[in-house]
Amino acid sequence: MDIATLRATHTDHWQKAAAIRALAMDAVQAANSGHPGMPMGMADVATVLFENHLKFDASAPDWPDRDRFILSAGHGSMLIYALLHLTGYADVTLEQVKNFRQWGAITAGHPEYGHVKGVETTTGPLGQGISNAVGFAMAEESLRARFGAKVVDHYTWVIAGDGCLMEGISQEAIGLAGMQRLNRLIVLWDNNDISIDGRISLSDVTDQRKRFEAAGWKVLSCDGHDPADIDRALSAAKGSDRPVLVDCKTHIGYGSPKKQDSAAAHGSPLGDAEIAATKEIYGWPHGPFVIPADIKAQWEAIGRRGAAARAEWEARFAAQSTAKQAEFTRVMAGEPPKKLAPAIRALKKDLAEKAPKVATRKASEMALAAINPVMPETIGGSADLSGSNLTRTGDLDVFNADNRKGRYIHYGIREHGMAAAMNGLALHGGVRPYGGTFLCFTDYARGAMRLSALMGVPTVYVMTHDSIGLGEDGPTHQPVEHLAICRATPNTLTFRPADAVETAEAWEIALTEKARPSVLALSRQNLPVLRTAFTAKNLTAQGAYVLAEATGKRQAILMATGSEVEIAMAARAALEAEGIGTRVVSFPCMELFAAQDESYRKRVLPAGPVRVAIEAAVRQPWDRWLLGERGREAKADFVGMTGFGASAPAERLYAEFGITAEATVAKVKALL
Amino acid sequence: MDIATLRATHTDHWQKAAAIRALAMDAVQAANSGHPGMPMGMADVATVLFENHLKFDASAPDWPDRDRFILSAGHGSMLIYALLHLTGYADVTLEQVKNFRQWGAITAGHPEYGHVKGVETTTGPLGQGISNAVGFAMAEESLRARFGAKVVDHYTWVIAGDGCLMEGISQEAIGLAGMQRLNRLIVLWDNNDISIDGRISLSDVTDQRKRFEAAGWKVLSCDGHDPADIDRALSAAKGSDRPVLVDCKTHIGYGSPKKQDSAAAHGSPLGDAEIAATKEIYGWPHGPFVIPADIKAQWEAIGRRGAAARAEWEARFAAQSTAKQAEFTRVMAGEPPKKLAPAIRALKKDLAEKAPKVATRKASEMALAAINPVMPETIGGSADLSGSNLTRTGDLDVFNADNRKGRYIHYGIREHGMAAAMNGLALHGGVRPYGGTFLCFTDYARGAMRLSALMGVPTVYVMTHDSIGLGEDGPTHQPVEHLAICRATPNTLTFRPADAVETAEAWEIALTEKARPSVLALSRQNLPVLRTAFTAKNLTAQGAYVLAEATGKRQAILMATGSEVEIAMAARAALEAEGIGTRVVSFPCMELFAAQDESYRKRVLPAGPVRVAIEAAVRQPWDRWLLGERGREAKADFVGMTGFGASAPAERLYAEFGITAEATVAKVKALL
Repeated sequence: MDIATLRATHTDHWQKAAAIRALAMDAVQAANSGHPGMPMGMADVATVLFENHLKFDASAPDWPDRDRFILSAGHGSMLIYALLHLTGYADVTLEQVKNFRQWGAITAGHPEYGHVKGVETTTGPLGQGISNAVGFAMAEESLRARFGAKVVDHYTWVIAGDGCLMEGISQEAIGLAGMQRLNRLIVLWDNNDISIDGRISLSDVTDQRKRFEAAGWKVLSCDGHDPADIDRALSAAKGSDRPVLVDCKTHIGYGSPKKQDSAAAHGSPLGDAEIAATKEIYGWPHGPFVIPADIKAQWEAIGRRGAAARAEWEARFAAQSTAKQAEFTRVMAGEPPKKLAPAIRALKKDLAEKAPKVATRKASEMALAAINPVMPETIGGSADLSGSNLTRTGDLDVFNADNRKGRYIHYGIREHGMAAAMNGLALHGGVRPYGGTFLCFTDYARGAMRLSALMGVPTVYVMTHDSIGLGEDGPTHQPVEHLAICRATPNTLTFRPADAVETAEAWEIALTEKARPSVLALSRQNLPVLRTAFTAKNLTAQGAYVLAEATGKRQAILMATGSEVEIAMAARAALEAEGIGTRVVSFPCMELFAAQDESYRKRVLPAGPVRVAIEAAVRQPWDRWLLGERGREAKADFVGMTGFGASAPAERLYAEFGITAEATVAKVKALL
Repeated sequence: MDIATLRATHTDHWQKAAAIRALAMDAVQAANSGHPGMPMGMADVATVLFENHLKFDASAPDWPDRDRFILSAGHGSMLIYALLHLTGYADVTLEQVKNFRQWGAITAGHPEYGHVKGVETTTGPLGQGISNAVGFAMAEESLRARFGAKVVDHYTWVIAGDGCLMEGISQEAIGLAGMQRLNRLIVLWDNNDISIDGRISLSDVTDQRKRFEAAGWKVLSCDGHDPADIDRALSAAKGSDRPVLVDCKTHIGYGSPKKQDSAAAHGSPLGDAEIAATKEIYGWPHGPFVIPADIKAQWEAIGRRGAAARAEWEARFAAQSTAKQAEFTRVMAGEPPKKLAPAIRALKKDLAEKAPKVATRKASEMALAAINPVMPETIGGSADLSGSNLTRTGDLDVFNADNRKGRYIHYGIREHGMAAAMNGLALHGGVRPYGGTFLCFTDYARGAMRLSALMGVPTVYVMTHDSIGLGEDGPTHQPVEHLAICRATPNTLTFRPADAVETAEAWEIALTEKARPSVLALSRQNLPVLRTAFTAKNLTAQGAYVLAEATGKRQAILMATGSEVEIAMAARAALEAEGIGTRVVSFPCMELFAAQDESYRKRVLPAGPVRVAIEAAVRQPWDRWLLGERGREAKADFVGMTGFGASAPAERLYAEFGITAEATVAKVKALL
């Protein structure tokens, strides 16, 4: 619909949508940075969505049964800031909008989870939001199955652009959503035919409607500038038995005389003159950031539209049993159950006694077997490696369209989609997602794993086959740099437990953590229990600790993680036999050790003795501990990998790459 | 087609296909590790392909005009080893097949490029091969346009499984291939309905035929166990005007009485009893690794089938002009043109004189403007950030179906697909690919970037917006861990040039390198030229070098890269003004510095003076240089990032995060 017709036939709508457009133009101009074209293009769709469909109450942004709105095309952040400001979200003041993209403002360049209520997930890296949304929709289904439709009954709405749809992750997401028949997931496609480089046809000829249908979606369409047509499509979307794509035909930079329908509208301020010309066309005579009171009032009424529904929900919730209320409140708050700590303690006791020689991936399964029965909010899964990752315990049924009470998701061969869906599950709240693949294939999931860290959501990555120890599958499947990658990523806990006891401890930390993702790097090969003396205390929580002390004068400190702690212990035995006092430090989590106070760190790693670290991976993260945080602390060396692995049985590889007790002993002696 | 019918009606075919199947079963059993089900399922398709369609000559695996055959489902590696052995590739002896997956054998667990002639690319990580194939097909088109169909005229064949098609990267690949109308790209889909976790329906309901059609592909189908039907489909595929998917309906573990059509056939040895039972059904009475001479002879005849075509090609090639022959030979060998070095030298001279204060992304464009005209084999591109990455120089037309002489590819918003396609372009040979995105989005491309390194192909990644210096787009777009990630990856050159001169030098290295990928981390913000004295020598090739020497007694050494070298120089000026002799070491490439001899490294970083490194990123890769390779070398500190960035103008971010000359001076003084 052209602007003249739209203005003439839908005056009220037009004014409200124009307020969004004006704020977007003004804020981007003031910041001298940002993306005006998308908010200008999608303002009509967003106005209809917020006015007639989205279930929300601006005064209660944490209402658990609100619809979730996800701006997958996160560069259009001014769209959501405008909507939140106009509808009356308390945090998003006009001052914040004026400070768009400035230091200290909550109105970040791209929408950041945790900065702004109403921003359900961090978006900007394309394709993530639509993929998170699959997790949000699965969380809704799972919680509805558990707590009933009186408590959980909402939709997940997504605005996605061509960029989101071109990213491969979106295929993983729509494939998963289609298989799961997530009929409360509705994606509004901003089909404006423009990407940064120009017309979409420069790089793509995909028939998106057909593509989504092929993945099991329902496809609707509308004129993205015709409020009645948009409303018709959104109403129809809510009645689907499958996830829905609404193809919204729009114009990027709608109304800008020089920039509409061009890439020039995408990522730069329009300029004062063009803004003036556009406002003229809009019939919007107001200065920068000026919203007439009557239009603001109309928007605020929309912001209050859900108040009655929320009150009804609260009444319904209050009518639930006390136990159900408490349980729902607990899981939505991400509080671990009281039974978790005793369950872990009992397991550790049992492990210390029986000392089973198992792979840490198997130990992880044993931990989950203790955890899942007492922690009903866990939702496990694997990217088609269930039997390798050992992520499915016997009590978990499969979660699918026929069984929403299931707690195990077959994510398919979709590592990136799995990671993003897990972020969505965690962000929705009420569930605790964990999912597995091989550690090497964190490569495929990196985009979403970084966002777990940036958002501070406690997604748990169960990454098995964590070194050359996987053997014959060879270097394509053998991680060597991936521990360094995870450790280089801020706000991420990377665990590499040495035995079944540390594995149980790592799980306990991962599942009680509220603001950081955890990576559990787990062995394929069997490892002995080294912690045969039971401790109630979670030693892994210290990050590193003295596993075995030197018997004589302490001349050497060996540090190791995971499968290499066994090697360190063997090297220690050999060194001690030669009279060289040797301490072994097990180092399951560098991040947690770095967070200990300095006196503890110095006690574990005193200056003086030579240091050798052993890890079947690259050295990069070890230099800090080897060479001393302040330098000059010790002579040091490293036993590990300097390049990629090879195809052969694991024992052969360890021998050929020199990751052995003998090599460790030799390095210690060379330093003494 | 069932086995009884197949055996009865296609005796010769059956015996040849049974040889593949038997070798696969036997080798996996002997290795006690591997994937028999896929080779058993696809043996009929592969036999028809090699017997009737694939243009190859086993005696000349490097023949430039051979068809390329890519086993995207790399876990089925025994399929390709069997084919190469049977058709007579000299390297792939029966001994090698018997040593499948063992130390020192070329028959690695997954097919490794460089180990085995006939393996065109390393596969195993799913979705990579099909995505490499898009690059292979584009290279063929580009070279055909340049050198003519008499010299370049071949197909790219791919075998892909459900795993490849479920990975998101495959969507990026098929979207790109569809847009490019790569009609010589033919994908044979091993449609066996099984993945590791079980039936495909556990995780996917996608109508793959419809999905490929939506991306602009032609779709054919065949009974993957009916040789005549397979032949019909492959013949039809070669006449398409679009890329082709051939839906080959197959049975995984074909013929295994207990494991056919089940996930049990996928990734484990069948077991001696099941192998015996299967061979019984096959009518294959031969022991492990025994191939009857007549069957081997038939296969070897297939291996010689292309000899005549090759001879004709050689005659045609010899009839080309001497210049054309020399040029084709040069580009296929990956030799840089003689004009490259003088072009870079002239550019460096000009830059040293004029000292333009430009962003290193702009300096990169200036380097490319010097390089592209003298290096006609470059093929540039960007993942929809052409105007930001500055990867397109004025002389490059767009490469597409209407202009195969173009040298610039609009990859679309497909970082992973771009990286994999570039690997394919580089592996095909004859072209030198480079492509851009933001450094932060190496996250999306990691899977393919790792394979560049593992294979040792000189793909060039132009990664701009390399720090918080990108400013207002905020932490989703600001890399902090990505330099550590690239540096942790073996066999990868990570450059972060400090100015326009170092940028030109980095490009020279990247484009003359034959066996390593390069990452160029480039600034968004302007930087002064620091190397105003022209040197013919490429100082960046040393990895790190003394940019400015202490004037008095050397008390401090500052190390920095990229945009932070300017800060180091300012800090040095301030320290020198206070009488603290300070050396500045520019550190554009840690890997190249690590490869210098020890005496050079010690000259650049002598023990004694305190050390401070400055980089707007995490510290992890710096500890080695800060703390001393052998420990005890110096007191040290770091100025950089400890967490994620924020949204604000760049200058503000540098100030707020304390990455300043003042902070550097303070840290030096605190150490003295």
